[in-house]
Amino acid sequence: MDDIINILSKASIFEKLEPQIINKLSERAHQNMHKKGKILFIYGDIAEHYYVVKSGHVKLFRETLDGTQAVLNVLSQGDIFGHNLLFEKNTYPYSAEIAEAGTIISLPLSDLREETHKNNDITLSILRTITHQLEQTERELERRSTQSATQRIGCFLLRQAIQQKTNPPTIRLPYDKMLLAAFLGMQPETFSRALSRLKKKNKIRIEGSYIHLETLDQLSIYTCSSCSGKFPCEDLMRNNPNGIKE
Amino acid sequence: MDDIINILSKASIFEKLEPQIINKLSERAHQNMHKKGKILFIYGDIAEHYYVVKSGHVKLFRETLDGTQAVLNVLSQGDIFGHNLLFEKNTYPYSAEIAEAGTIISLPLSDLREETHKNNDITLSILRTITHQLEQTERELERRSTQSATQRIGCFLLRQAIQQKTNPPTIRLPYDKMLLAAFLGMQPETFSRALSRLKKKNKIRIEGSYIHLETLDQLSIYTCSSCSGKFPCEDLMRNNPNGIKE
Repeated sequence: MDDIINILSKASIFEKLEPQIINKLSERAHQNMHKKGKILFIYGDIAEHYYVVKSGHVKLFRETLDGTQAVLNVLSQGDIFGHNLLFEKNTYPYSAEIAEAGTIISLPLSDLREETHKNNDITLSILRTITHQLEQTERELERRSTQSATQRIGCFLLRQAIQQKTNPPTIRLPYDKMLLAAFLGMQPETFSRALSRLKKKNKIRIEGSYIHLETLDQLSIYTCSSCSGKFPCEDLMRNNPNGIKE
Repeated sequence: MDDIINILSKASIFEKLEPQIINKLSERAHQNMHKKGKILFIYGDIAEHYYVVKSGHVKLFRETLDGTQAVLNVLSQGDIFGHNLLFEKNTYPYSAEIAEAGTIISLPLSDLREETHKNNDITLSILRTITHQLEQTERELERRSTQSATQRIGCFLLRQAIQQKTNPPTIRLPYDKMLLAAFLGMQPETFSRALSRLKKKNKIRIEGSYIHLETLDQLSIYTCSSCSGKFPCEDLMRNNPNGIKE
């Protein structure tokens, strides 16, 4: 139980709450190990739980009528999903699949819903999380219209560099390239071509899932010219005030 | 003052609140008429107000370092903006410009912030609004990766048909084609070409800002095959349960 509470207290909606609220909300938590490929729920299923990733990766996606898959997000340790189903909607608006084997904690949505009706701290905390997610999604939408495919890969690497605090800048790709391409909304061929262009334009060396950069500066000049933000990205620095060390 | 309260009570964050809370929050409200082109604030300005559109249209946008403009949203009567600045961030994460002349109501963010710390109803209400906005933004992100430019215009027209409840399906474009292209993340030339293709593929007649369709069915079969949702769009039907009349 302690390890569940430990992970929950790092999840964004819980991190600013009193320990007794976290204890209460975790009373009916369950954790399960899942293999890669396991479907946790599909679009339209009745929504009874929300989830926190303890390990592995989870892909949130939708499928169009003509069979194309659109990846909405790829989640990692401490990330939460399903918490945005507190209101009139009671079916999941996306499907969730285990993208890399790991342990997922599930918690009843009814407990969270009940708590938001009597505890303003938790409502504020969820509001803060969803506001942050909205900001991130709007940024991604911006990048889709202003950045080239090559710049979008560069942007992903720079954001990973901040999160991984790597020094010298060697970034481990958090998941395989096929999934990364889907997450960036690209066909695998487009992704491969764009990655080759990125290698040519910037001093980048790729070894398996490791990407070595000589400096972050060159890549950020190339990539961030087509973004309204400045490097290092403000939204990541807020959660990571010590920033990257180079 | 009554007309301010009247508009505010239709805005999403206020619509489920008790009248006395709306009265209180509107005490320091101001309304101003603005000409087209007026900048209300720019990205990075200290955020002191949130806004409700009483009439006209407001464009929210960002500019990249290399000068490209990314339009995040175009807002109409009853829409709210700036309300997502309740937390640590105190500068606007986008610029706002009057896209069509109109009257805008401004309200102090500090009042709203204070109220969310003592009134769970208002916190829940803002949470409901932002959750809905996140869902809309995720849908838009999906469409950017699964739909062609032609289908995206079709999608915009179908969604307008639901909102305008038009019968027979004649849709008035809510703003000019240049702005619409920017809102859909397209270059003006791409938009023109895509609109021509849409006319050829579907029985559509365009007269100035009016678009006449013979039926919605044909357009929805063409457009919604590349969407994970079904026509009529679930998110719009929730706010409009009587739906479209055809």
